[in-house]
Formats: sequence, structure tokens, C-alpha cells
Amino acid sequence: MPQTAHRTDVVIIGAGPVGLFAIFELGMLRIGCHVVDALDFVGGQCAALYPEKPIYDIPGFPMIEGRDLIDNLERQAAPFEPVYHLGQQVTGLTRRDDGGWRVETATGTRIDARAVVVAGGVGAFGPKRPPLAGIETFEGKSVFYMVGRREDFRDKRVVIAGGGDSAVDWALSLVEVAARVGVVHRRAKFRAAPENEAKLHRLAAEDRIDMVVPFQLDGLEGADGRLDAVIVKSLEGETRRLEADALLPFFGMAVKLGPIADWGLDMDRKHLVVDPARCESNLPGVFVIGDMATYPGKLKLILTGFAEAATAAHAIHPLVHPDRALHFEYSTTKGLPGADAGSG
Amino acid sequence: MPQTAHRTDVVIIGAGPVGLFAIFELGMLRIGCHVVDALDFVGGQCAALYPEKPIYDIPGFPMIEGRDLIDNLERQAAPFEPVYHLGQQVTGLTRRDDGGWRVETATGTRIDARAVVVAGGVGAFGPKRPPLAGIETFEGKSVFYMVGRREDFRDKRVVIAGGGDSAVDWALSLVEVAARVGVVHRRAKFRAAPENEAKLHRLAAEDRIDMVVPFQLDGLEGADGRLDAVIVKSLEGETRRLEADALLPFFGMAVKLGPIADWGLDMDRKHLVVDPARCESNLPGVFVIGDMATYPGKLKLILTGFAEAATAAHAIHPLVHPDRALHFEYSTTKGLPGADAGSG
Repeated sequence: MPQTAHRTDVVIIGAGPVGLFAIFELGMLRIGCHVVDALDFVGGQCAALYPEKPIYDIPGFPMIEGRDLIDNLERQAAPFEPVYHLGQQVTGLTRRDDGGWRVETATGTRIDARAVVVAGGVGAFGPKRPPLAGIETFEGKSVFYMVGRREDFRDKRVVIAGGGDSAVDWALSLVEVAARVGVVHRRAKFRAAPENEAKLHRLAAEDRIDMVVPFQLDGLEGADGRLDAVIVKSLEGETRRLEADALLPFFGMAVKLGPIADWGLDMDRKHLVVDPARCESNLPGVFVIGDMATYPGKLKLILTGFAEAATAAHAIHPLVHPDRALHFEYSTTKGLPGADAGSG
Repeated sequence: MPQTAHRTDVVIIGAGPVGLFAIFELGMLRIGCHVVDALDFVGGQCAALYPEKPIYDIPGFPMIEGRDLIDNLERQAAPFEPVYHLGQQVTGLTRRDDGGWRVETATGTRIDARAVVVAGGVGAFGPKRPPLAGIETFEGKSVFYMVGRREDFRDKRVVIAGGGDSAVDWALSLVEVAARVGVVHRRAKFRAAPENEAKLHRLAAEDRIDMVVPFQLDGLEGADGRLDAVIVKSLEGETRRLEADALLPFFGMAVKLGPIADWGLDMDRKHLVVDPARCESNLPGVFVIGDMATYPGKLKLILTGFAEAATAAHAIHPLVHPDRALHFEYSTTKGLPGADAGSG
């Protein structure tokens, strides 16, 4: 596995709204940072789960969509030149001899820092993986949880599994390029935009899409990452074999706390306990902010996470700049300190 | 003094950014409110002291001017139909027999409520009053700290005191309608936009404005609120008598904690001590949020006050709705609850 090593002031784990705002708050105190996220884009849940859903309780925005909030926060953080490591789940957190911390990711990135800010939201999350034996050997080769380029599926036999908008939308889109599209769903009824569902049924009636309902995924056939067929089974036990070059399971997102649970952090019902005056965990130098942090009176609101980001940044300041007194200033006093925050 | 009596769920003292956001947070929990402020407009410092100053540390706004932030917050609060009582300093806070609170203002408004949220910022602030004997008897009649309608000064002999933009700008404006304009300043140099200061000196050279420098206000002559003359004195002790129908002192804003200091609230260096898990003071049912509140780790940031507004609203919910469990929901789940929050 390739190893890339970095050194910075602070590693932020999680690039959701609260993690993004932590970049800004640290930057205002001239503290540089690297940011790691399991998703391969910033924004966390806001971007992955509800990019177009209106949010009403961000102060100063009578309404804002998740995607726009993330865009704004990314722009607000940009002057401080954060280094993003996306698409990498954090696997290891270990204390260094110098009192700092080492963060390691699943793809071999290693970052040494004075402090760590865990802004993990509900936890690392990714697509729900259907429980099929050996599916991991096909992932990224012939099993995909997202469609990057539609052209990759030209003239392929594609099986799409799921009953929501993603399944229906991609069936309607890929039918135009694929050799064949099958849609596997455990019920006849879909949870998708009615007009798109109607279009799906129309294409099925024209024999351009195979409706495989009510069936569930049951197995995969193939070798070396190359899929030959997808096996499906009805509730009554009927089995069918669908020849396929690619399987696209669209079963939504799953969340897990992941390796964070193994780092020795004090926990209370799947949340990490912090001192609210500092947002610091029981591990000195490891701070937790946002939905993952808990303390008396904790509210799981984005705006509460924003305030925690400020609290953590101020608590981190003496760790990174032990020689500099913090002359607290409002942002209006002198504007942004510029992009010269120390980063590595 | 006229008495107007109201009844509501919560009285918010202070209509600055944090007080405005408290309206929203309470409204989301179907808690109605009245809002009292000593200033006769909403926005507190943001609106009074730096309406056009860029603010950089509001999450989601890479930059926003104070005035725009206030406009946004007012719009965000509007669906919950808050009742504003502006231009009224709160004078009294007394506990009612039913466990609620009574708030009274300097202009005779009386509001009974289940809880009180003090969002007083740096304290009540208003124009700095020059230390002239009896000046209060002229205020609002012939001594004014703000100009409402320029026409009110047509054909009047006006004395303007001060050396900043307000003094210079109003001198330039009123010279067009007033019978005579004098400008009293303790130094020859003004702190005003250079081109306006140049224009002032040009008008003085044309004998259209009397420059009374370096002089300070020393006394008022007149009776029954009607001014006859303003007495000024130089540092060397020279005295002059300026015949005048109106005096406009522009000496900026002054801040004071005011009567809040007398209500029995626990204080720590001019701030009010709260339990950060609830933002509640030592007086049950009296909550404090924003710059006036203190607790371990407190940061005086607008964004921290926003989070405190949410904390206080959640702590207040069982006081106002003892029979309703709070089913915590994100704003995205169902949108705004509508404008049927109970208010009185």
C-alpha cells in the first residue's frame, strides 16, 4: 500500500459542515489543518443525503439547500488552504512520543499533527452493501454503488437493484447506452418520482427494460472481479439467473462509527464524551465536535456544531502556539488574517 | 405613564442578532415571544455600530455586512410573528405568583411571560449624553440625538456638537434648511470623511456655517423644554453664548448594563453566570444568551450566541408546554411549523 506522510497543526476527521467550519475557525487563529473524509467529496450528509433539501435553521438563512451551505462553507474555509484527503476512511489514531497524534487512513495516508478534531457526524458512511458472498471482490470492477461516467456502461448488460429514485433514474438513463438493463426490486411498487416510475413501466412494456419484481439479490457468479451473472430469488423461493456484466445496487447509505470506537475515547451511547468548555475528549489533544460529541444539554444541530468548532479552535490554540498569547479579536476588527496560516 | 399589558410565552430582552435568532428557535418549538429593546430598531450593535462593516465569521457567509445579517435574521424570525417593543429600556423584572415573570419597560409596557431570555449583548446602549445640567428636560423637544425629519429644523437656529461623521454630515445637510448652523467641536481637526470635512470648512469660509472650535458644550439656557441658547467654553476658559432653537449632540453610543444589574442575577465581572447546558441563570425561568452570558469556555462570538439561543429554547420548552413531549426534529424533516406559535 502506498504511504504518503504529512505533517500539520491539526487533522480534522470529517469534511461535513462542522468539519469545514472548523477549518475556518482554526485558520482565524493561524492554525493550519488537513481534512480527511471517507466520502470522496466534502459536505458529509448535507452533500450525500440531502443536497437539495431545504434547511431552515442555519442562522442568517431563512432557507438554504444543503449543497449551497456546503459550497459557502468551503469558500469560507478556502483562504486558509486546507489540504483535503477525500475518499479515505481514517483507520488509525495513535499518540506520538512528542505528545502529538498520528492519523492513518485506509489508503495509506499518514498525517502527524499536534491535535485532532473529530467532526465525524453520524460516523463514516457509505453505500449499503447487499449481503452477497464475495461481493467485495467485484466492487469497483463490475459492482458499483455510484455511476461515475455513463459511457462506462455502453453495450454492457447491467442489473440495477433497488426501488428508490437512484435505481429508477439510472435505469432510465442507462437504457440509452447499455446492451440490456434489468431492474431488481423486492416489491412491484417503487419509491420514486411518479412520472419516472411510469416511464420505467412504459419501457418495460416495450421490452426495453427487464422488470425483475418481486425479487431480491441472492448471489453473484463470476471470477477475478468479472461478473457473469446475478442470481435473484423471489419470496416464494423461485430463483432466476440474470446474465450481467455489471451490478449497480442502490440501497441507500449506511452509517457506522467504524474504527473511532477502538481509539479509547470515552463513549456514551455511541457518542463521544467531551468537556463542553473545550470540546476535548478524555484523550488530551483529541477534540470532538458536531453530532458525534456529547455533553450535558447537547443539541444535535449544525449550528451547535459551528459553535463547538470555535470552542475547539480556541482550546487548541495554546497547543499549536504555546508561545503566542491569543489576543481575541472579532473578525470585523482586522478582517481575515490571510492565507499564511501555518500548514504542512 | 401609559400602561399597556401583554401576556406571552417568553419575553426576549434585546433585539440584536442573538435575540432575533432566539425568536426563530423558540418559534420552531411553537413558543411565542415578545421582544424588547432600548434602541428603536432591531439589530443591536450590528445595526447601530457597524451596519456596513464586513463580518467574516458567521458560518456559511464568507462575508456579510452587519445590516444584511440583521435583515436575514429578521426575515427568518418573521414567520413566528414576534411582537416587538422597541425604543423601550427594560426597567423591571419581577417574579409572579404563578412562577412566571413580569417584565416592565421605561415607557410603561408590562409583559407577563412564563420565561425570560436576556440577550442583552454589551448592555443597553444609546447616544452619549453630554453632562449638561438639566439636559433631560430638553430632550425630545429641543435637544435631539438623532435627526428624524430634516424639515423639523427648517428656519431654526441649530447647534451641532461633535467631530465625527454624524456631526459633519448633518451640518452639511441642515445648512440647506436651517436659519443658522453652528458646529461645536473641541478640536480643529474632525474625524470625518475628508471631502465632507473640506466642504464644511468651505461653507464656514463662506460664512454659511459657524465653526465654534475649539470649544466644548458647557450649559443650556431655556425653559419648559424650549432652548434659548447653548453655552460653550474653550479649554482656556473663554465662554460664548450661541443663540439656538435646537441642539444636536453627536458623541457616539454609550453602553451600560442598566437595571439588569439589580435583578439578583449571579454575576461574574459584569457578565451573567449561566448553566451552559440550559443557559439558565440562578433565577429559574430567566435565561441569558449571547455576549452577556458567561460560563467556562465561553466565547463572545455571534455564532456562539446562536447556539445558546437553541439551547435556551429547548430548556424553555417544558416550561411553556409541560404536557407536550419534545419530539426533536431537524428543520429538514417537516419544514417550518408555521406561524401558529402561541403568542399573546
